[in-house]
Formats: sequence, C-alpha cells, structure tokens
Amino acid sequence: MKPSKKIHPTAIVSPLAKIGKEVTIGPFCLIHDNVEIGNRSIIEAYCELGQPSKLSDGSPLKVGADSLIRSHSVFYEGSSFGDHLVTGHHVTVREMTRVGTNFQLGTKSDIQGHCQIGDYVRTHNNVHIGQKSQIGNFVWLFPDVLLTNDPNPPSEQLIGPIIEDYVIIASKVTLLPGIRIGSHSVIGAHSLVSMDVSPGMFANGSPAKTMCKARDLRIKNEPGKRAYPWTKRFHRGYPPTKIEEWKL
Amino acid sequence: MKPSKKIHPTAIVSPLAKIGKEVTIGPFCLIHDNVEIGNRSIIEAYCELGQPSKLSDGSPLKVGADSLIRSHSVFYEGSSFGDHLVTGHHVTVREMTRVGTNFQLGTKSDIQGHCQIGDYVRTHNNVHIGQKSQIGNFVWLFPDVLLTNDPNPPSEQLIGPIIEDYVIIASKVTLLPGIRIGSHSVIGAHSLVSMDVSPGMFANGSPAKTMCKARDLRIKNEPGKRAYPWTKRFHRGYPPTKIEEWKL
Amino acid sequence: MKPSKKIHPTAIVSPLAKIGKEVTIGPFCLIHDNVEIGNRSIIEAYCELGQPSKLSDGSPLKVGADSLIRSHSVFYEGSSFGDHLVTGHHVTVREMTRVGTNFQLGTKSDIQGHCQIGDYVRTHNNVHIGQKSQIGNFVWLFPDVLLTNDPNPPSEQLIGPIIEDYVIIASKVTLLPGIRIGSHSVIGAHSLVSMDVSPGMFANGSPAKTMCKARDLRIKNEPGKRAYPWTKRFHRGYPPTKIEEWKL
Repeated sequence: MKPSKKIHPTAIVSPLAKIGKEVTIGPFCLIHDNVEIGNRSIIEAYCELGQPSKLSDGSPLKVGADSLIRSHSVFYEGSSFGDHLVTGHHVTVREMTRVGTNFQLGTKSDIQGHCQIGDYVRTHNNVHIGQKSQIGNFVWLFPDVLLTNDPNPPSEQLIGPIIEDYVIIASKVTLLPGIRIGSHSVIGAHSLVSMDVSPGMFANGSPAKTMCKARDLRIKNEPGKRAYPWTKRFHRGYPPTKIEEWKL
Repeated sequence: MKPSKKIHPTAIVSPLAKIGKEVTIGPFCLIHDNVEIGNRSIIEAYCELGQPSKLSDGSPLKVGADSLIRSHSVFYEGSSFGDHLVTGHHVTVREMTRVGTNFQLGTKSDIQGHCQIGDYVRTHNNVHIGQKSQIGNFVWLFPDVLLTNDPNPPSEQLIGPIIEDYVIIASKVTLLPGIRIGSHSVIGAHSLVSMDVSPGMFANGSPAKTMCKARDLRIKNEPGKRAYPWTKRFHRGYPPTKIEEWKL
Repeated sequence: MKPSKKIHPTAIVSPLAKIGKEVTIGPFCLIHDNVEIGNRSIIEAYCELGQPSKLSDGSPLKVGADSLIRSHSVFYEGSSFGDHLVTGHHVTVREMTRVGTNFQLGTKSDIQGHCQIGDYVRTHNNVHIGQKSQIGNFVWLFPDVLLTNDPNPPSEQLIGPIIEDYVIIASKVTLLPGIRIGSHSVIGAHSLVSMDVSPGMFANGSPAKTMCKARDLRIKNEPGKRAYPWTKRFHRGYPPTKIEEWKL
C-alpha cells in the first residue's frame, strides 16, 4: 500500500489517470483524467495536471519517470515530457508540445504549446516559449528570454523561432518570429534578434549584430581561457557518457 | 439543484457573494464576500476572488456573464469586468479597475488597479499594466509589455500611459509614464517609448522613433499586402456585426 | 484559544513549526517543519512556507513580526526576513537569503537564494534577483528589473551585482553579473548595465552610459525642482525618526 500513501489525502486524483509506481502527489493537487505520470516522479502542492483542452488531439499529458514538478504549476493534456523533467514553481505548459529527456523549466516559465524541444534543454526563470517554437538539444535559455511567433501581429500565421543544438541565449533576449539561431551560437543579454545567426557566432545588441565567433570570447578575467564551446568546461548534470558524446 | 453541483465541495464561497446561474467554481477556490459573478461563468481551481482592499471604495468585484477565469488567479474587490472576460493562469488584478466586454488577459499578467480598459482588448502573457493606465478598445498588448506610471521614481504622482483604440504593441515594449499612443499605431518589439506616438504611425527602437506610417508596413514575405490597419485582415473572436462597425 | 482560530482549518501546519502569537494562516496553506513566523504576521491562502532544500544549511525560514505574505507565495527553508516584510502574490524565495526589516517584494518577484538584502528595500512586480546578489538599504527596484549573476553562461562561478544604499533602478533594467551600482545612483528604464556606476550618477541606455549627476535630474514638468536625492521628497512608509537618519 506504499504507493497510495504518497498521494496526499487532499489531492484530487482522477481514477482514470495512470500514476506510476512510487509517485508522490502533494497536497491540494488536481490530476485530471488524461494524464500519465512515470515511476518515482514527484508532483508538489497545488499542481494541476492534464487540464482538458479543445486545442489538443486527445492524447494524454505524459510526464516521464523520475521527474519533479514544483508547486503551483499547470500542465495541459496533450503534451509529453521524457524522463527527468524538473520544473520550478508557477510554470505553465499548454497542449501539444513534445519535449525530450532531462528538461529543466525555470520558475514562472511558460510554454505556449505546439513546440518541439530536444534533450537536456534548460530554461531559467520567466522564460516565455511561444507557440510553434523549435528548440534543439543542450540549449540554455536564461531569465526573461522571450520567443515570439507572430510576424504580423495580430495574425493567425504563427512561425516560431528555431534554436539549434548547444545554443546559449542570455537574459532578457527577444527572438523575433521564425529566426534561426545556428548551433553553438551565443546571444548577449538584452538583445533583440531580428535576423538569423550563423552557427558558432556571438551576436549582441538591438537589433543584434554578429560581433565575432563565439570561440573568440574569453572567460571574464581570465583572458587566456576560451569561454566557448561551453561544453568543454561545464558538465553539471550531464552524465559522463553523454558528455563524451556531445563534446565537440 | 444543478447550479450548486457546479461549486466544488472544496471551494470556500462566502454566502454573501452573488453567484449567477450555472456558474462553475473549481476546487480549492476562495470567493470572498464582496463579489458578483455573472451567469454561466467558470472559475477554475485555486482562484481567489474579491480579496478585501483598503484602497478600494467598497464596491464589489464584478465579473460579467460567460467569463472564464483560469486557475491560480487573484482578483481584488472593487474592479469590474464586462461579459466574456477570459484570463490565463496566475493573473492578478488589483482594485478600482474598470474593464469593458470581451477582455482577454494572458497568463501571469498583472493589472495594478485604478485603470480604465475598453472593449475587446487582448493582452498576451506577462503583461504589466501599472496603476492609472488608460487603454481604449480593440488594443493588443503582446508578451512582456510593461506600462509604467512613475515619472519621478519613487513618487506619489502616478501618471499612466494612454493607449488609444486599435493600437498594437509588440513584445517586451516599455511605455514610459503618461505617454500617449495614438489610435491605430504600431510599436515594434523591445522598444522603449519615451515620447507620444501620433495616430497611425509605426514607432520602433530605444528610445522609439517614428519610422513610417503603420499602413506602409507590409505582410512579411508578401510585399504587396499591407499589414495595417490590422482590422481589415484579422477577425478571430470578433462578432461579424462588430467587424463592420470597427473596420476603418 | 484565539490564536488557533486564526489558522484556517484547511491549512496544513506542521506541529514543529514555530508560529508566533496572533498569526493568521489562510486557507490551503502548507507550513513545513522548519519555519518560524513572528507575532501578528498574516500568511494568505495557498502559501507554502519552509519548503525543504538540500542547498540550505538546516536553518529555518524566519519571517519577522507584523509581516504580510500574500497568496500563492513560496518560501524555502534557510532564509530570514526582519519584521514588517510585505509581499505581493505568487512570489518565490529560495534558500540562504538574509533580508533586513521592512522589505517589500512585489507580485511575481523571485529571489534565487544566497542573497544579502538590507533594510527598507522595495521591489515592484516581477523583479528577478539572481543568486548571490547584494543589495543595500533603501533601494528601489521597479518592475521587470533583472539581476544576473553568470559572467560566462553557463558556469558555476556566479557573481551577483552589488547595489549600494538609496539606489533607484527603473523598470526593465538588466544588471550584468558583478556590476556595482554606487549609492544614490539612478538607472533609467530599459537599460542594460554592463559597467560599474559611480555613486550619485544617472546612467541610461544599452549599454548604459553615465549621463549626468542624479542630482541634476529635475522633476518632470517642474524644471526648478531637483528629483534626486529622492530621500528629500519621498517619505511614504518610512518612520519619521528613520527619515532624519537617512536623509542626506
């Protein structure tokens, strides 16, 4: 009877929801019918999972194994996440988004739905990912980054940005609709990106201009050390076997 | 007894609150005394409506008929909304704001109180509307737009921006206090607007400068088609009779 | 028995938590073990206090007397706040932050932990204070201000900005990691601050440049009146004895 003990008595869990083994569901949670939660995942207090959506295709909200969804978060039905999802508090995720494994979504971040997101992507806090965004693997989005999608506001023809693998987007950057950021590029804080950025470049400003190759950027106060590709110097949270694979 | 069935047993609803017919109130809601909710409206889980405020005049929170307030939202007493209000999740609305019909308020958006907002206004996510803002009809505010109000921070003399009818304000724009944006104007993404913008103009940059008439902007990748006035090409959610009325 | 009456029956309060006299705890709150709440404080609905953290040192969450934490807020164990804390809704505060008295934290604001914050600091809404930030006394942070901390994103060597006493940072400003803002300085809205700002200066733009002395700024529309130091003209919420002390 151990599993049932981990569902707090104040939580409201649909008998139709498919809850894995040893899943923890916190106080005051609301788990709707169309939900699948992987083994050993933890859902903190005040979360609402599987909110029904007319804009979805009937598929469930799938949350992979060993995940952690922090309190006050809202997920709609019709989106799926691989194993090891970790979120902050107060996040919202709409329908029809497909996300790989080891995704981290910062507090107050918001995914508007119909997005594709790869493996090992990390967003910091208050990141807004507009509908139809496409994000590769090992991408970092820092606080207040905004991915827009409407080239002719308001319109019905939404075109999300495309962010390739290993890209770093610093704080408070806005990406205009349909912009492509090439792999291993770095975008400086507070930039407005209105044109594509080629792979491996550093772009900065409003509108952002390509300044140099990312590999020419040095570690602050250590002029001899290259800062990029960051995969050569930063490994926290990446499994060793993966590191070999994704190092340049 | 059908109406009462729609109030979830975990919701805490004051007997003094005036709840219309067939109103749905979700789990874990908190409805204070000084609240009026119109017929057929839906209040999702974890909402707190009618929070008492010393800064209000004693009038109730009024929510019009056929409204939808999504989960985790907070509304104070003393503000009123016409019919067909729709909000995202985690919104906050303080006291003494008057809003027309068919208002849409995006997830995490925040109205600081003492504002005037017309009919058919739509805000996307994380929009901040400072105290004493004045917004006309058919206005669009895209994600992360910020309306400031303090010309001499910090001070007690708050002056909100004035946004006239049909204005489009793209993502992450900041409006400085007391700025007037003329009707049918368009403000480009990530701009800082520090001077008034004349009606029908396109302004862009930090500080924003008037670049051209809005009607000279073309649909992206379709150079022959004018993008503005947007009312000639975008109709979703506007009733046909209204469309005739508000087309230029 | 009056004190116990003030804890709503739906609140879940650990018997290990130290709750002061006449403390109010609202509906659906969740108070964990490692919490100390000062006398007469009010915790509104849906708040979660004292969330356990592996990144903390075992010390409790301490909230001073006569505080008000508004609804839907989340505080981790291991941070401490002096008396008269006031927060908006939906705030989050992580572990190991030390804050003085009379702190105001606006709706949706977020403190990432390991920060030092002085007395009488006020943040407006949606302010993000990254890990290891250092903020003096009588500082104002306006909406959407962002304090970053990673000079080589992503990295493990976080260096927060340092904001000295009496500083005013206007809306949507980004401070880059490790930047020092000298006392009594003023930063204009929507700026990106990438270099230190000397005490008493006004800096503005992206990247921000020092434009003039703050004391040369005039009250808008009143050219004869100096706007700064603001302590000579703004007193709301500051006790008279304190005013004498902190006036220039």
